[in-house]
Amino acid sequence: MKKSEFFFGQDIISLDQFNRKSVEKVFATASIIKKTSAKKLLKILQGKVVGLLFFEPSTRTFSSNCAAVKRLGGQTIEYQNPLLTSSVVKGETIEDTTKMIEQYCDAIVMRHPIVGTLKKVADVADIPVINAGDGIGEHPTQALLDMYTIYEKHKRLNNLKGLMVGDLLNGRTVHSLIRGLSIFPNNTIYLLSPKQLRLSEKDLEEAKRRKIKLVEIKSLDEIPPDCHFWYWTRVQKERFSDKQEYEKLKLSFILTKKLVDEKAGKNTLLMHPLPRVGEIETAVDSDQRAVYLTTEPKNGMYVRMALLKLILEK
Amino acid sequence: MKKSEFFFGQDIISLDQFNRKSVEKVFATASIIKKTSAKKLLKILQGKVVGLLFFEPSTRTFSSNCAAVKRLGGQTIEYQNPLLTSSVVKGETIEDTTKMIEQYCDAIVMRHPIVGTLKKVADVADIPVINAGDGIGEHPTQALLDMYTIYEKHKRLNNLKGLMVGDLLNGRTVHSLIRGLSIFPNNTIYLLSPKQLRLSEKDLEEAKRRKIKLVEIKSLDEIPPDCHFWYWTRVQKERFSDKQEYEKLKLSFILTKKLVDEKAGKNTLLMHPLPRVGEIETAVDSDQRAVYLTTEPKNGMYVRMALLKLILEK
Amino acid sequence: MKKSEFFFGQDIISLDQFNRKSVEKVFATASIIKKTSAKKLLKILQGKVVGLLFFEPSTRTFSSNCAAVKRLGGQTIEYQNPLLTSSVVKGETIEDTTKMIEQYCDAIVMRHPIVGTLKKVADVADIPVINAGDGIGEHPTQALLDMYTIYEKHKRLNNLKGLMVGDLLNGRTVHSLIRGLSIFPNNTIYLLSPKQLRLSEKDLEEAKRRKIKLVEIKSLDEIPPDCHFWYWTRVQKERFSDKQEYEKLKLSFILTKKLVDEKAGKNTLLMHPLPRVGEIETAVDSDQRAVYLTTEPKNGMYVRMALLKLILEK
Repeated sequence: MKKSEFFFGQDIISLDQFNRKSVEKVFATASIIKKTSAKKLLKILQGKVVGLLFFEPSTRTFSSNCAAVKRLGGQTIEYQNPLLTSSVVKGETIEDTTKMIEQYCDAIVMRHPIVGTLKKVADVADIPVINAGDGIGEHPTQALLDMYTIYEKHKRLNNLKGLMVGDLLNGRTVHSLIRGLSIFPNNTIYLLSPKQLRLSEKDLEEAKRRKIKLVEIKSLDEIPPDCHFWYWTRVQKERFSDKQEYEKLKLSFILTKKLVDEKAGKNTLLMHPLPRVGEIETAVDSDQRAVYLTTEPKNGMYVRMALLKLILEK
Repeated sequence: MKKSEFFFGQDIISLDQFNRKSVEKVFATASIIKKTSAKKLLKILQGKVVGLLFFEPSTRTFSSNCAAVKRLGGQTIEYQNPLLTSSVVKGETIEDTTKMIEQYCDAIVMRHPIVGTLKKVADVADIPVINAGDGIGEHPTQALLDMYTIYEKHKRLNNLKGLMVGDLLNGRTVHSLIRGLSIFPNNTIYLLSPKQLRLSEKDLEEAKRRKIKLVEIKSLDEIPPDCHFWYWTRVQKERFSDKQEYEKLKLSFILTKKLVDEKAGKNTLLMHPLPRVGEIETAVDSDQRAVYLTTEPKNGMYVRMALLKLILEK
Repeated sequence: MKKSEFFFGQDIISLDQFNRKSVEKVFATASIIKKTSAKKLLKILQGKVVGLLFFEPSTRTFSSNCAAVKRLGGQTIEYQNPLLTSSVVKGETIEDTTKMIEQYCDAIVMRHPIVGTLKKVADVADIPVINAGDGIGEHPTQALLDMYTIYEKHKRLNNLKGLMVGDLLNGRTVHSLIRGLSIFPNNTIYLLSPKQLRLSEKDLEEAKRRKIKLVEIKSLDEIPPDCHFWYWTRVQKERFSDKQEYEKLKLSFILTKKLVDEKAGKNTLLMHPLPRVGEIETAVDSDQRAVYLTTEPKNGMYVRMALLKLILEK
């Protein structure tokens, strides 16, 4: 898992493996794939089998990876919730499951509820392993797809001004995106959240060390003009002991048509990792700048195709 | 969703989209596919990905669609019961799930427990959507496969005399088949059911409007000779408050070897949408006219292949 | 299901179908497949669809068969635990499910919890059926993969000396392997188990009839030198009414590094059908002779590929 611009045979476990050059390599590959005809792509993973082992539900990430493998001409062995239907029930360790499944596959994409599992899996596996999210740990491909979406629009990943809203304390995608953007110089992120859900001191410290500028703001009024992107996330009810306070705060963090009209710039990307449950008005969906239901998931597939190609194609 | 004999890019949501010409186009396409070699078929959906989203269990329809896509060289993203394993659990709307999944796919085949869902899904989706059954609503591909099976045998879909037996009140496949046969002129259907499970007045009215002739009969003795098909369905125990009455009636509606010998014509197709649970004696299975376990499911696959080809192949 | 070295169109239900010649044919085919390039293999099942119907959880056997079909260029219709998600819930018989699914497929691979089901299924099906384990009945492909692993190492399946340890009473894989090795002359198996879990008198009788020599031993000390293989299995806690006795015995039947160093020969294969839950120390995993996590599952895939090729390729 060392930093490298060369991917063949490697695991993708953490965003920390990436440097500027390797991120750009992934994005250049994704852009080429996006322009290649469906039939030509089928040669890239022809004869390859990828294990999709999802030990936790995930419509989006599962489907996206499944499509990525198949659009490259590869085949899949699929497990959704194997905790219910597998040897794991009989008490098999994740290491043994990994060793077994890798006899049948050329690569493994795994999601697991427990932080750190993917590192363990990559250590025992002789074939490449891609982290599709482990607990509240990392979800590197999500960050890469968000970064790619910004990059595709603004043609760069440095000198950006972004806004992140919602549950910044617990949001795995928020943490990963901050980490990803810190690979590039001179980025500033404005942070807006209920005070119970602020980014932790530890995360703020780490950002400082990584030289990405974070600016906490207190209300929608303080959103600076002409952000390159707004990254919205869900404020989860279950995080509040005081439900009345939740109900009051909730309304302060809804992305409305009105807010977009007043505060978004002409080129501000409206982003959200999904699923959303009310924190973006559906009236915003048809706005040209809204990419959460369209370009973001689509790019997720292309970024995953790029990673699979780089890892598996000689 | 307008009536048309041209299918490319269209949704298949309701039988009402079809006219005589478009039905015949589907059947002609199915017949060609049936005669084409397995390897040649693989080119038709090469490089295409179809989402099979089944929000309700269905061995038969799921497998049939899965085989249809794969025999045409396409690939699938499969969800069985995603209510248990997906973003839907987190409260995502069916519209958002649709928008997301369509970023990865070229078409969606969906089954859903709630009537009208497929219309909603087709409205938000930019890719073609096929209704694989929504609640007690429509199941257009089932009707088409039944019609194709009759058409293949009798070389026409007009001037037919058919019999429908069992639960005519609740049977979705019965309603769809009556609707489908009403597209063609001069058909007569004899209806036989327990009186609690008669076709509703509304359905009888609608049939009259559609100019298909329905004739209710009261016992197996009244079955007319030389029907072109018998369409048997299950009488469900749970529809009866008086279980003794159920037990008594049940026996009046079993398709026995004896009944076939006495009442079926030489060319009467013996049909059933399956699964059966006792209402057809297994002794009937080996009768040459019995198609419920063989030709009917097989044709289901070919009709679905035809629809996918027409919708997706330029 | 007659004995034959010619497989095309046949079912694989029981090891009793095999003779020396047909076993060698499978192994020769597996060895060729092992050496063939991934892309060339894709032609073998091109255009074919195989139904994987698993009415019981099985990560290993399911994945192995799935990979086998796909590496040969075939496609799958997959059911895991269809008892929960299918027509079976509505009361459909296994015969009807089989007839229906075979309309979509070129072959069926089935696992079922009830002994004898696969025989029944093969009898009604017009396409080839492969038994992937039915209850405590047979699991012929597991035995074949174990035999192939021994054959590949020792270049023969006669004149072997092997050891089997653990639950010999209930272990389906143990029974199948004894039966499989009895096809070849002059083999001797040493048996070591807690006395509650000895091979049954009936099984011992049958072995005698089959002319394979079985020798019961009473402790690890009695393991003879230079065995060709050690076949370890799990001692299941739930088989003991006296839990204290279980705890005591358990330790007598653990495959430790120390035991390997003291008692295994230079060429003794260390085998286990998996999953293991503690009865082999992980320290043994890296021993060159340990094949349970690597060669054994890998060969499982190749043997299944060989069977599919022989059955389906003209």
